[in-house]
Amino acid sequence: MQEFLSLSGIESWFKGLQDHICSELEKMDGGAKFNEDIWEHKGGGGGRTRTITNGNVLEKGGVAYSSVSGDVNDKILKVLGIASNTNEKYFATGVSLVMHPKSPMVPIIHMNVRYFELSNGLWWFGGGIDLTPHYIVKEDARWFHQILKNVCDKAHETYYSRFKTWADEYFYLPHRQETRGVGGVFFDRLNEEKEPLSKAELWDFVKNIGMAFASTYTQICEKNKNLPYTEKEQIWQKLRRGRYVEFNLVLDRGTKFGLETDGRTESILLSMPPLAAWEYNYQVPSNSTEATTLALLKKDIDWLNIQ
Amino acid sequence: MQEFLSLSGIESWFKGLQDHICSELEKMDGGAKFNEDIWEHKGGGGGRTRTITNGNVLEKGGVAYSSVSGDVNDKILKVLGIASNTNEKYFATGVSLVMHPKSPMVPIIHMNVRYFELSNGLWWFGGGIDLTPHYIVKEDARWFHQILKNVCDKAHETYYSRFKTWADEYFYLPHRQETRGVGGVFFDRLNEEKEPLSKAELWDFVKNIGMAFASTYTQICEKNKNLPYTEKEQIWQKLRRGRYVEFNLVLDRGTKFGLETDGRTESILLSMPPLAAWEYNYQVPSNSTEATTLALLKKDIDWLNIQ
Repeated sequence: MQEFLSLSGIESWFKGLQDHICSELEKMDGGAKFNEDIWEHKGGGGGRTRTITNGNVLEKGGVAYSSVSGDVNDKILKVLGIASNTNEKYFATGVSLVMHPKSPMVPIIHMNVRYFELSNGLWWFGGGIDLTPHYIVKEDARWFHQILKNVCDKAHETYYSRFKTWADEYFYLPHRQETRGVGGVFFDRLNEEKEPLSKAELWDFVKNIGMAFASTYTQICEKNKNLPYTEKEQIWQKLRRGRYVEFNLVLDRGTKFGLETDGRTESILLSMPPLAAWEYNYQVPSNSTEATTLALLKKDIDWLNIQ
Repeated sequence: MQEFLSLSGIESWFKGLQDHICSELEKMDGGAKFNEDIWEHKGGGGGRTRTITNGNVLEKGGVAYSSVSGDVNDKILKVLGIASNTNEKYFATGVSLVMHPKSPMVPIIHMNVRYFELSNGLWWFGGGIDLTPHYIVKEDARWFHQILKNVCDKAHETYYSRFKTWADEYFYLPHRQETRGVGGVFFDRLNEEKEPLSKAELWDFVKNIGMAFASTYTQICEKNKNLPYTEKEQIWQKLRRGRYVEFNLVLDRGTKFGLETDGRTESILLSMPPLAAWEYNYQVPSNSTEATTLALLKKDIDWLNIQ
């Protein structure tokens, strides 16, 4: 058991997760294959960035594994908002992904699982999954949340409710008064001191989140990928992708952290859509499916019981 | 003379500038007309946001006038990085514009002139113009910088050099190691205490910057609007617009200030392009016009003397 909690054990599990996810997504897509870029981090470590383009289902997506270390500096401490001293070393590893499907009827998805450690012994896990449908289908959102609840319930009875609320708060665009999508779960800085779980149990939880991704998303894709759509839905898709860009560049902490700490830009901006649109003061027609979606981009919706 | 330095004098001059710019741009475009939205600011004042869409030359653009006031709060002080107390009132007025042309052969442009005042007597002017060609034409860049130099020289012999350098620093994407375009001039917090000019002289300078815009940009448009292009140039245009989005959402202080202080989102995000693209790790072909442009997206280029 102990070896799974070592840094190298966590690293190699994350690598395997990346392999598993890419393989499942390729199978589902049936068209494109992932390309891999191997890169090194100047402080130490590096990553494997895998991207998929112009697939049957996936128009642009990336699954990034990285494991980097380096000397803690003031910038990193400031961005992390932690007190430490600059003689420490940090170590960060994780898998992060975003998929932009070709069809507006298939949702965008994001998943991230990560582990962070300082040489002074401080450590935490973080992660999350959230779904961003261009058109919200209540049944799919309910099913998606039920899966996340099942994963959370295995770890602790409070987790789904806590981490669903956290996702509502995190994946929110204040300047639009919209959530990014139907949310999901989000958690950060989970460690033994604050959580009812041991490190091994937290790690199990994070692994289960990571493992839940592929089958969940591929099922959502399978269900929706053959639905018909027209140019109208494609226009809306590009506008919603514009919101996705706004979230990631203005609000996403991972993106901010990466850009401010001189991370690998192409890996950080993997999340960008292939094509996004902005229109001044765009108004959706009332009683449209677009209006229905907008009305559901709210915090505190009980997705498990939505009818 | 005195009345031109009153708040209402500054406001009404800015309104007139907006009228002038919109009228000149409409004439040049020969197709679309600006639409106007009048809005109110909850703290006091409001704005006139004018947008143009699907013109002959201008695909999407906005010219915003605003004049807003309100109670200073901690957020505003923090974003401005100034010491004051929260019993003050602030007052801010200005004209801000971004134009995204349809043709990739015509540059994007941004101009902004503004005045800020606190009820404790603190005040400053700010502003700038910068040009973002999708394809850099050295002759146009040289001409553009010469016009800005002429405007600056009328105010003070140090201004062009100072404000050109300031623009190089400001319109820079560290995560891309690229300038946004060929720069221009940028200045902020100009007041009598720090500058060799009086308030009236500073105001004259700001007015001259504002007045230089329309004839400069319309001439650049006229010169390039009929140049032929293909899909290749349009793809590159969308990728460059992606960079423009990155600058505005990650780095632009005005955007940040607006979003963080609960400004009018649609007016703040006027600067967004109609359609922008991202491609993972896009590489330009060597010896291409795209490669030539990339090589010129650098600070400290002496545009006045570029050959």
